[in-house]
Order: sequence, then C-alpha cells, then structure tokens
Amino acid sequence: MNQDYIQPNEWSILEEGFDSQKVKSSESLFSIGNGAMGQRANFEEQYTGATFQGSYIAGVYYPDKTRVGWWKNGYPEYFAKVLNAPNWIGINVLINDEKLDLHTCKEVSKFRRELNMKEGWLSRSFEAVLQNDIKVKVDTKRFLSLELDEVGAISYTVSPINSDAVITYIPYIDAGITNEDTNWDDQFWDVLEVSQNNQQSFIQARTMKTHFHTCTFMESRLFVNNNEVISPCSKAQTSNYTSCTYRKDIKQNETFTIHKFGGYVVDRNHDKNELIAAAKEVLVKAVSFGFDALLEMQKQSWAQIWNSSDITIKGDVKAQQGIRFNIFQLNQTYLGVDATLNIGPKGFTGEKYGGSTYWDTEAYCIPFYMATKDQSVARKLLEYRYNHLDKAIENAKKLGFTKGAALYPMVTMNGEECHNEWEITFEEIHRNGAIAFAIYNYYRYTGDFSYIPEKGLEVLIGIARFWQQRATFSTAKNKFMILGVTGPNEYENNINNNWYTNYIAKWCLEYALENIDIVKKNHISDYSRIKEKVNFSDDELSQWKNVADTMYFPFSEKHNVNLQQDGFLDKELISVADLDVSQRPINQYWSWDRILRSPYIKQADVLQGFYMFEDHFSTEELENHFDFYEPFTVHESSLSPCVHSIQAAKLNRMEQAYEFYLRTSRLDLDDYNCEVEEGLHITSMAGTWMSIVEGFGGMRVLNNTLYFSPKIPKEWNSYSFKVNFRNQVITVNVTQNGTHFEIDGTNEITILVNGELVTISPNNLVTV
Amino acid sequence: MNQDYIQPNEWSILEEGFDSQKVKSSESLFSIGNGAMGQRANFEEQYTGATFQGSYIAGVYYPDKTRVGWWKNGYPEYFAKVLNAPNWIGINVLINDEKLDLHTCKEVSKFRRELNMKEGWLSRSFEAVLQNDIKVKVDTKRFLSLELDEVGAISYTVSPINSDAVITYIPYIDAGITNEDTNWDDQFWDVLEVSQNNQQSFIQARTMKTHFHTCTFMESRLFVNNNEVISPCSKAQTSNYTSCTYRKDIKQNETFTIHKFGGYVVDRNHDKNELIAAAKEVLVKAVSFGFDALLEMQKQSWAQIWNSSDITIKGDVKAQQGIRFNIFQLNQTYLGVDATLNIGPKGFTGEKYGGSTYWDTEAYCIPFYMATKDQSVARKLLEYRYNHLDKAIENAKKLGFTKGAALYPMVTMNGEECHNEWEITFEEIHRNGAIAFAIYNYYRYTGDFSYIPEKGLEVLIGIARFWQQRATFSTAKNKFMILGVTGPNEYENNINNNWYTNYIAKWCLEYALENIDIVKKNHISDYSRIKEKVNFSDDELSQWKNVADTMYFPFSEKHNVNLQQDGFLDKELISVADLDVSQRPINQYWSWDRILRSPYIKQADVLQGFYMFEDHFSTEELENHFDFYEPFTVHESSLSPCVHSIQAAKLNRMEQAYEFYLRTSRLDLDDYNCEVEEGLHITSMAGTWMSIVEGFGGMRVLNNTLYFSPKIPKEWNSYSFKVNFRNQVITVNVTQNGTHFEIDGTNEITILVNGELVTISPNNLVTV
Repeated sequence: MNQDYIQPNEWSILEEGFDSQKVKSSESLFSIGNGAMGQRANFEEQYTGATFQGSYIAGVYYPDKTRVGWWKNGYPEYFAKVLNAPNWIGINVLINDEKLDLHTCKEVSKFRRELNMKEGWLSRSFEAVLQNDIKVKVDTKRFLSLELDEVGAISYTVSPINSDAVITYIPYIDAGITNEDTNWDDQFWDVLEVSQNNQQSFIQARTMKTHFHTCTFMESRLFVNNNEVISPCSKAQTSNYTSCTYRKDIKQNETFTIHKFGGYVVDRNHDKNELIAAAKEVLVKAVSFGFDALLEMQKQSWAQIWNSSDITIKGDVKAQQGIRFNIFQLNQTYLGVDATLNIGPKGFTGEKYGGSTYWDTEAYCIPFYMATKDQSVARKLLEYRYNHLDKAIENAKKLGFTKGAALYPMVTMNGEECHNEWEITFEEIHRNGAIAFAIYNYYRYTGDFSYIPEKGLEVLIGIARFWQQRATFSTAKNKFMILGVTGPNEYENNINNNWYTNYIAKWCLEYALENIDIVKKNHISDYSRIKEKVNFSDDELSQWKNVADTMYFPFSEKHNVNLQQDGFLDKELISVADLDVSQRPINQYWSWDRILRSPYIKQADVLQGFYMFEDHFSTEELENHFDFYEPFTVHESSLSPCVHSIQAAKLNRMEQAYEFYLRTSRLDLDDYNCEVEEGLHITSMAGTWMSIVEGFGGMRVLNNTLYFSPKIPKEWNSYSFKVNFRNQVITVNVTQNGTHFEIDGTNEITILVNGELVTISPNNLVTV
Repeated sequence: MNQDYIQPNEWSILEEGFDSQKVKSSESLFSIGNGAMGQRANFEEQYTGATFQGSYIAGVYYPDKTRVGWWKNGYPEYFAKVLNAPNWIGINVLINDEKLDLHTCKEVSKFRRELNMKEGWLSRSFEAVLQNDIKVKVDTKRFLSLELDEVGAISYTVSPINSDAVITYIPYIDAGITNEDTNWDDQFWDVLEVSQNNQQSFIQARTMKTHFHTCTFMESRLFVNNNEVISPCSKAQTSNYTSCTYRKDIKQNETFTIHKFGGYVVDRNHDKNELIAAAKEVLVKAVSFGFDALLEMQKQSWAQIWNSSDITIKGDVKAQQGIRFNIFQLNQTYLGVDATLNIGPKGFTGEKYGGSTYWDTEAYCIPFYMATKDQSVARKLLEYRYNHLDKAIENAKKLGFTKGAALYPMVTMNGEECHNEWEITFEEIHRNGAIAFAIYNYYRYTGDFSYIPEKGLEVLIGIARFWQQRATFSTAKNKFMILGVTGPNEYENNINNNWYTNYIAKWCLEYALENIDIVKKNHISDYSRIKEKVNFSDDELSQWKNVADTMYFPFSEKHNVNLQQDGFLDKELISVADLDVSQRPINQYWSWDRILRSPYIKQADVLQGFYMFEDHFSTEELENHFDFYEPFTVHESSLSPCVHSIQAAKLNRMEQAYEFYLRTSRLDLDDYNCEVEEGLHITSMAGTWMSIVEGFGGMRVLNNTLYFSPKIPKEWNSYSFKVNFRNQVITVNVTQNGTHFEIDGTNEITILVNGELVTISPNNLVTV
C-alpha cells in the first residue's frame, strides 16, 4: 500500500489535516455520484494548488481521434473520451475582497473532510487565516441527490472568527473547462447560450461531434445565522461563464451561508430545445424542497440501498470501511435506472478508460447488482447489450464476418467499438462469451427465463454465429481451433487456442443451441419471430454443433492441466515468488515483448473459466489448476485477486483467500497501485463484493436453490451480508461459531448450507 | 497497374500534356536528388492546384510525439519525421502583373516534362494563356548538383508569344512551410534570421527539438535573349521569407531568363555559427561556374555513375526505362559520401517512413552499392551501424538485456529506435541478423576482411549477445527457442520460433564465434583491444555455442519443409490463387486479426532465409520450400517479388521470374499500389536490380570468384549489366544466343560461368 492517511471508520471516509500533496488523491476518494452524474471532490472555492477538476455526466462522451502508429483496417474511427462537463459547484469566496484559496492562506487548521457513505454526502470544514489576517471558519456539505438525479446541493458557511468581515459569495457556472487527458488544448464543448433569469443561471452547451445537448444550471439562497436573507445579486456573464455576486457585512462569529443548487439536464431525458424549461422545473423543485429536506431524502434513499446491500465486518474497522467503500462507489456509479447507461471502470471519478463499458460489467458487476437490487436492474444491464446487437453485428461485419455474426465491442459508449489496439480490439474476443454467460447467469440467479425468448436468444445467436465463423479447422489436428486471440490475461497477445476462449466459445455454441430448442418448444411465437428475423437453418445449427463438438483444447498430460494456450510450456516457468521484487509490477518495468514471452498472468485466465464454469470441474481439478497457475499470476489487474480469493476459499485455503481479499478491498483507499489520483477502480469493486459473498460466504445457486458454504477469516469476529434472491432479502451473518440466516418479508425460503437443506422463516434467526 | 501516362523512353521519364490530376504523381516520379538533398518535382512558379510540396535535407528530421493508444514500456519517446525544408526553388512569375499559375490559366498547351536520367536534370516546358490573354512560352530546367552537393540550379525562361509584356520574376526563399503529414498544424522550424547581402539571400533556421541548423540561400542572374543583364532588384522580407523582384519589358518572342542558384548548408558539414559564410562561399562557386558549366559537370558526374551501374535491356523499352529509373533513384538517394547518412525507404521523394533507416539497407541495398560503386561505399554503410553500436546496446538495455547485448533499431535516424508499434519495434528482431549478414556479405563480395577486426567484430559480438539472451530454453522440448517475434513476414505478430529468425540467430552466433577465432589468430592486437573493450569470457562463448547448437526449428515431416513458425499448419491453407480478387490487397480489405490468422505471407520469410543462405540448401530443398510458400505469398511489400524472382530464375522458371520482375521494376512508374503520390519506393529498387543481376544473370560469389549462370526472359532480345568486383568493372551482356563478358582496365579476371572457369582479358569480348 502507498498511503494510509484515510482515518478508519465504519461508515465514513475521513481525512484530517490539510496536505496539499493529498488533494488529488482525496479528490478521487471523496468523489460523489448518483448514477446520472458524478464528480471528483474538488473544492467549491478557488484552489490554485495542484488539482484534477472533474464533473461528469452519464452517457456524455466525445469521440476523440484514434492515435496509432500504423493504421489497421477495422480500427474504430475514434475512442470515446469521458468529458469534463461544465463546472456547477464553483463558489468564489472573498473575505474583505481577498479570495479564499487554501493554497495561498497563511494558515489552514482543523481541516476535516468526510464522505458519509451511510447518508451519501460529502462535507469539509476548516479554519483558515488569509493573507489579510482575517481568520474564517468554513463548513461545507455537498451531495448529488438520488431523489432528483439532475440536481446537486451545496451548503457553504463562512464565519469570520477574529473580526468582522465583508463576505462575498460569487457562485458561478463555467463551461470554460478542459480535460486533464488532452495533450492538444482541444476544446470539446460548444457553448450555445449563457442566460440568467432572476436568481437562476443557465449555460446551454453541446459537445462537439457527438452533439449531446446539456444545460448546466444554478440557483442560490443566502442565510445569516441560518435565517434566510434576500441579498441583492449582481450578475456577470461571459461567453462561457455566468455568476451572481452576493456581498454581506458579517460580524465576528456570525455565520453567512449559501445554499447552491445546481446540476445538469441533458437531452437523453429531455427535448434538446426545452432544456432551459427542464432546468427551471428541476430548480423550482429543488429550491422549494430546500437543502435540508433534500438532504433528508438523500439519507432515506441511501438507507434503502444499504438495506439490501450492506456488508458488515466485525473486528476489523479497515476491512469494514473498505467493503462499504466498494459498495458505496458501485451504487454511486450505477443504479439501474437507465438501460442506456452502464458501468465505466472509473465511474465518475476520473477520465481514464473513457467511462466506457467493458466486459467487466458482465463478468464482475452483474452478480453484485443481481444480488443487491431488484432483478430488473440486472435485466437492464442485459438489455443494454441487446440494444447494441445491431451495432455488434455491424462491428463483426467490419472485421469480415457475415450472416448476422455479432462481435460486441471491447470498449463502448453506444455499441460502437471505441478501442484501438489491435491485440485488444480485434483479438480479445472472449468478451463475447461473458456477454452470453451473463444471460445464463441472470437466468440461473433470477429464474426469469422470459428474457431469453424476448431478447436474449437473439444475442446468443449472433454470438454463436461469430464463434462458428471465427473457428478455424486445422486439418493437421482434425479439430476446430481459435487462432490469434488475446485472453483475459492481457499479458499474452495473438496466441492460438487460449483455453478460456475456446471453452467459452464451445459453451456459447451449446448454450445457444440448447435455448433455441427450449424456445422452439415452449415459446412458439417468439421462436417464429426470431427465426424469421435472424433466419437460421438446421444446417447452420449443425455447423455450430460440429464446431462445439470438435473444439480443440490444449492440454498437458505431464501436468494434467488445461494449458492457457498453445506453447505455454515452452516458456521459462519461473514462479512469481522467484522474481526480483524490484521488477514488480512487471508492467512498469518490463518491455512488452518481455512480458509477452514470460509465463506471467495479469489476471485469472484458465482460472476465470474455472470460476465461471465451476460446476463443470471437480474440486481436485480446480486445485490442480489453481496450483499450476496461481504461482505465475502477478495480479496486475484490479480484477484479478477476487477470482483467486473465491477459489482459495473454495479450496479451504482461508489465509490465502484473505490475503487476496485484502489486495482488492482497499485497493484505492490505500492506493496500492500508486494511481488513485486518476480515479477509482469501480468495476473491480464488484469483485471485492464477490470475494466476500461467493468466496467467504460460498454463495452459489444450484438448481434454483440458494447455496452457502460459509467460512470466515480468522482475523474477523464475524461478518454479514445481504442478498436479494428472487425478491427475498436474506441476511447471512457468519461468525467464528456458526452462521445465522434471517429473511425479510413474509415468506419462508429453503436454502442449502454446506449441502444440507435449511428452511428459514421470517422473523426467525436460523443458526447453522 | 494504375497509370500509364509516363511515355516510354530509354533514358528519360516523360510526361506530355498537362493534367492537374497527375500533378502529385508526377511530383513524386520526377523527383530529383543528389544524396545530400532532394526534392519533389514541384513547380517553381505559384501553383494553386493540388500539390504535395517537399524539399528534404539528408539527415534533418524531427522527433515527433509518439502516438499510441496504450503506452508500453520501452517505446521510444518519438518517431522521426522527415521534414519539409524551406523552399528555395520558388520563383513567382508575373506577366503584366498577373501571376502565372497553371491552375488558373485559360489554357495550357504543349506541356512536357522530362526527367533526364542520363544527365541528371529535370525540365519542363509549356505554353499558357493567362486570364489577361497574354500567351507565354515557358522553359525550365533544374538539377541538384552532384559536384557541389549543397547547390541546385534552375534556368527559367519566359517568352511572351502573342504580344510584348512586362515580365516579373520574384525568386524567393521561404521557411513558412509545413509538413503534409502533420494533423495538428505543428511547426517544426524556428527561423533564426532572414538576411540579404547584395544579390544573395539567406534564411537561417533551426529544427525544433533536434536543433539542426540550416541556412537556405539563393542568388539569381538574369538574361534577355541569353545575354546577361544587370537588372535592379527590389527586395522584400518577412520573418520567414525573403525575395528579390526583377521586372523587365520584354518584346514579343524575346526571351527573359532567370538562373536561380539555391540550396542548403547544414551544420552536419559546417560550424553552425558559420553557415552564412559557408552559404556565401558555395554561392560564389556556383554563380561563377554559371548554370551551363554546372550542368555540364552534372552530365559528367552522371556519366560516371552510369559507367559502373547501367543496365540495358534490348527489345523492351518499358523494362529499360523501369530499371534505369530504379538505378537512377537509388543514386539520387545515396551516393556513399557520408557515413552518417543512409537510405530512407522513400528517399527524398516524400515524407512517409520518416526518411529513416530500415533493415532494407542491409538486406537489399548493400548488394547494389557493392556491385555498382567502389567498395568504400558499402563499407560506409557498414560503418553507419558500427557508429550506432552504443545506441543499439542502450536500446537492448531498455528492453531488459544486459552485458553489451545490442539490438539495432527497426527504424532510426541517429541510432535510436524511433518506431512505436510493439509488434515491430520490440519483436521484429531479425533485423539484427541482417546487420550481421551484411558484414559477411561485404567480406564475401569484396574480400576485405580488415573491416571485421577493425569494426565489424564488435557489432557481431553485441548481436550474438543479444541472441543468446533472447533465446528461451524450453524444458518441455529440451531446445532453445525464440518466442514472441515478428519475422520478415509482418503479417504474423508475436509468433514463436519463426524459422527465419531462429536460423539467422543461430548463424549470427556461429559467425561471431568463427570470427573471434580468426581475429584471435590473425589480428592479435585487434583481438586484445576488442577483448578488453567488450570483455567476453570463454564461458560466455560456450553459452553462445550451446544456444546455436541446441536451437529449435519448426519442421513438418509431412510437407518436408521448415515451418515459418510454430503452428503454421493449423491455419486454413487456402492458396492466394483461390482468394477472391476483390479482397486484394488483403491489407486494404481485411482486419488485422484476419490477416494474422491467415497463412498469407507479406514478403519472403522462410524464403528470405533460403535467399540469404542459399548455399546451405540443395536446389531440391529450395524448390520444395518455394512450392510450399509461394502459393501463400501475397507480395504486399515492395520488397517481396525480387526474392521470389531470383529464386524462380534459379529454379529455371523464367516465366514466373519475369512476372515477379515486372511487379517490381515499374512499381512506381505504373503506380501498382495506387500511392505513388506519397513518394517512391527507393529501397525496393535495389531489389529490382538484384532481380536482374542475381536472378536473370545468376551472379554469385563463390570462394572469391565471381559466378554467373545467365538466363534471359523470352520477351527480351538481350540485356546487359555492369558489376564492380574488387575494383574491376565487368560488363555482362546476355542475349538469346549467349552471354558476352567484357572487362575494363588492364587486368584479366577469371570467373565461373555455369560452373566453368572462364578468363576474361581486357579489350576482349568473351562469349559463352
């Protein structure tokens, strides 16, 4: 770990004392979001020290120029860049006409920042002595409303504590913002109109190229000693900026408070020509509720979220804080309200990875959302891919596939591929498998088959077509092969017969065939509709079967393991433990060719297959593969340790499982990768959740029955988690002496605990 | 082929009639150069139609930002961009104050352009009616002097032919130029000073970042009806431009001529603070010679070049024109004067490939230069790499190699790597082999062993160290392997055990060991010096031997061929002949992954090894490999057909050999790849030369004896070529009825013709 300044606390992220070196790290860690928008924890008042400004609107991106050395056919025209949106939080604060700026103050004391995860708000307080020797006490609180998800609210209070002072607030909105990751001073926004209406201010702006229309807005209220005052406002305006100035003489120890309401309305939810009207409407609502009432609603909304998703850990505050941080950030990023949105690897906390959708969603996030929310949320995530099926077919076509074969993009904002490394974009095709697997996983968990005839089967067919066409028949081996791929382990490129890819391809073909049969039998009208729409023949289906039946898998007799790929055993098989630690992480020290010819595994690859298809293999097989591959795994992806943690737990290696858990749960809080300034690792946070629920808790679904095989790290007194299984919330509390099960609601449920059927009735704690 | 507007002619490239659509193509084809600088055939007068302006100075480049999607360790910081240098050819021409501009004239007639390859000049003539209805006749001639290689000279004559007219010449030099390939309006030059001195004008400019200092200069002389006139000059100047204006009343049918002398002096040859003095000195020389005398010297210089390098083809004017074009362009690009220069793939004819050095030089160009020039020229090309040895060691170090292992860059201007595609930069390591092979080839051809103890052995040792460290021991196969490479066939990336790479690696190790032994025995003081400098031990040498002795080679028993790489036979082996022609060239129609998993070969790979190590294999082996690989070869590199042509000739398949020859010899003139606008394919032109001399002529060197096995395509009456073998120029004239040999000078030579010893005496035509 690289930092430990965050104070341990069960429900809050806390920072005490001001350290300008930590500002960018804290801006990431204290980020707030509400699924529709989010922002880094930038200060409201001017700050001239090092800072990374970021406020992001879900679904708003820019198609930036693809930059490559040598253009290759099929490259997407652009990569999607998440855009820093106009600033609506800004409040310049003047004390006797001197700007408050923590970077230039004579002294900053009692600095405290809190991200309250239980209630969903961010606060900051400090005392500062300005160059003019006025000392002020400042208290701020800010949240992005879950209730009104276009609005954020700020309460900002200044009190001069060593003399009277003239306090000036200049709340503003500003479209003159830039992106951190642009090298070229590019502009990404066209400002269309800056306007004001009484106390309200608006900036209408449109992203260049993508033409997302937005209206950024604000309105403020003023209070002296908590009594609202009508303060004259002097307005100012430029071509991309508008502000109001409020000026008051404030006596020593009196408080002057501004409540600023602001945010964005966007043409995803409104007519692009009616954005001002929409902004006015939301401002009227927010202002009439007022800051305190909105905050009360915020607490209630978060209480509901925690009610179905909380994990408690007793006896380890840092572990408790870590897991809640993960759950909190996942919920800040995606709430399942909008099927056009998805879960970017950095959420709303930074610019990297373009805020785009990766296979992380299907492989890591869907289990979390299925178990902690209504099943409609997971279904929305599936629908996201269904809605992109035409674009996936188009994408496959660009790469030479035909007849409705679908290749989902590696990275996307709107269904189009927007990543441009050939070894990833063109070759990391196993993503198609995860997208099919998520359909299976959703059905397995929810029991809701309806999705398959309604939408899922078309996706399965497009994916099956892709795999059948992508397979190559080797006359030399009389088998179908999949040549030239990158597996989940991105430390191998353009390899032949990646076992995971071949395995999931075969599975996709079989699963599509199986579901065609079921739909044909049980959903006749859907079957006819789909058959007419996608036009498959028995001949085609038998080709799929042929590929699935004749798939080649590299295997070592000597080691009795499936080989990650052809030729894996030709590498110099030196275990990670024997590597010079000064060379770790290898991706920071080794050139790419050296990484590629090494045996080192970035994240679970063969073992990812053993995770997803656990029931296809015996525990002995798992153990053998785990023992073979884990020693070569460097876990240099945030998505890696969770799978190994789950498997170690399954193999009763709790110390190892706990060790992997630690690497994942406080990855960002303790900044293991020395990069938290750039933003948080949102999608891997779902893996942390899986480590507890599936790893320690041993949760599975076996034939429509929830199954647990609870274990507990020796470091903990107890831990508990909640899962929503088919509309019943079960609380599982694992202690060193046994496991307690409780169920909400009025119906009982029968579950399996370590293979034994156990029935749990409402209001009845069952201990096993 | 995509164009056929170039008129067939034995000694000239000719264009007749003005077609604005052909301007950019002709600007490439009519390019001129003198080894020290070169330029596209841009017009002197203003041209507002589509044009690609380019004037290039040898060795002057700019380190442009590396642009990649995902940065990888070891990537070079920059790629070298060849820079368009300040324009010195410009002459604005006004006819009664209207600018002459072929794009806006009412009529252009009798347009004729000639690139006279025999004498080394470019001319253009036309008649044009301007918008003001004045009709003028224009004659221009331009050349870059071989004698004074910092100078070019232009003769530009205007004659008003339908009335008297005021003719104004405004010769200028202009540093306000841009690069065609920049997307960002980047500037690459800092202009330091613009100055004038009597009739002379200077612009001192420095490239940004690299800080190459240059002085661009000009001076003019005026003539009416060929009589020099002293014309008052009115000067103008901006921050990056300077001009002189000469104005004359010219009667109908009188001629007004300007001789403009211009060019560049650079700090490669002069003190950067003395560039104006150097420019003055060269201008004084040039002006005192005058245009006509300089042109006379130019003819003599080219006569000398042709004297030792000409190839004649009787009975096929287009073939004659094609081969002379290749020889001419090679000589325009590199003359062997300066060991800091090398041969860029586009020479001075365009911006692509950055004007940098590739393995093309060692694999394709050195044979041409060895056989057509004094052996000191080839030695200079070897020294270029010797001078970069430290940087090659540095480069290898960046990739994790140690103890003096050297990896030469894939692309370089100054010894540093400047290409940034991992699969090329890090993996196309066979280039190291070609650099060692060139040392062997030089010694084989020239008999000059002295280079090895003096310089070459250090290079061989650095390269051997690289191969030994780069090899991986496979315990599974009990062999050394080379994993993760790109071979000469760049349509495969990150493959294991590319046969060519493994073969040349083994050869390099053995050749280094062999030469260490020889130097130890015969060059004792060099041996001590080298041993002290590079510090090798017997232990290390036995490691090299071990790797060489235990190298793994993929082989197919079934096909009885060495396999291009592991797993090659798993591909779908559909021959090129069975591909849909609408999909060719595949690099324009297929995505990269599809190319990679296909069996298609961009350029000779296994066969490149059979070409270089021909004497290691029987003709039957060659035939077997040729028959196996040629059907999968798409020849989508300009470097490809020549090797196949040579091998087809060796296998007595003259029709096939001729077909391959045609693809290479008029590649640019007929614009086979539809891209001649971007510049010419200079390095592959050496391959065309090899196709005739080594392919049809069957030239080899066997144990210090020149060997020929002449064949002739049935389409030709005869062809002849000259080779300089160990300071004796032999002319070989192959007819349908026999081959005639002649030798210059006073000494006889004994050669092998089809295995028989033949002695040739001076002034005595020998027919075999």
